Amino acid sequence: MLGLILAQEILSPQALSVLGAGLAIGLGALGPGIGIGLLASGALQAIGRNPEATPQIQLNMILAIAFAEAIAIYALVVALLLKFVA
Amino acid sequence: MLGLILAQEILSPQALSVLGAGLAIGLGALGPGIGIGLLASGALQAIGRNPEATPQIQLNMILAIAFAEAIAIYALVVALLLKFVA
Amino acid sequence: MLGLILAQEILSPQALSVLGAGLAIGLGALGPGIGIGLLASGALQAIGRNPEATPQIQLNMILAIAFAEAIAIYALVVALLLKFVA
Repeated sequence: MLGLILAQEILSPQALSVLGAGLAIGLGALGPGIGIGLLASGALQAIGRNPEATPQIQLNMILAIAFAEAIAIYALVVALLLKFVA
Repeated sequence: MLGLILAQEILSPQALSVLGAGLAIGLGALGPGIGIGLLASGALQAIGRNPEATPQIQLNMILAIAFAEAIAIYALVVALLLKFVA
Repeated sequence: MLGLILAQEILSPQALSVLGAGLAIGLGALGPGIGIGLLASGALQAIGRNPEATPQIQLNMILAIAFAEAIAIYALVVALLLKFVA
């Protein structure tokens, strides 16, 4: 049994939106950070195994990083919106 | 049985924004930290396997680290905004 | 049975900022800690496999550790700001 009483004027939308902003960028940075690590690890090992293929590997690594980075930027945009847009 | 009563005027926006700032940089550091570890691990193993490819591997390692570091800096920016911007 | 009553004026901004500071450095240390472990593991295995490549591996290991360490320092700075800056 769980009794939860939130009395008045406590958890306003404005109060929770700053907590939401912190969670948005915090969790939103978690995935892309790990993802960039995983994909770049694979790319760098591939360059080490076959250095002549460096241009192709580099191009595709940057392409993939850009997509992962975009996800982090989505989280950043939402965090800034939660903070600054009423 | 859990009874939780939050009485009035407790969790103001200002109060939650400092908690949000802590969560933002805390969680936001988690992903890039692990990501840099993963990609540098791959890079260093590739250098060990093929030391002649060191310049290409080093260049791409630093490039990938910069993108991962950027995500941590997004989290830092949001944490500082939550702390210092009303 | 757990009864938790948070009466008024308890969770002030100051109260939550110390919790936020703990979360900031706690979670912020987690990622870089694991990351440095991963990359040093890769470096040491690479040195074990190919000891002649030690200078290149060592240089790049220190470089990558510095970037991961920087992320932990961001979390430290935010934690200290949350604790000491009103």
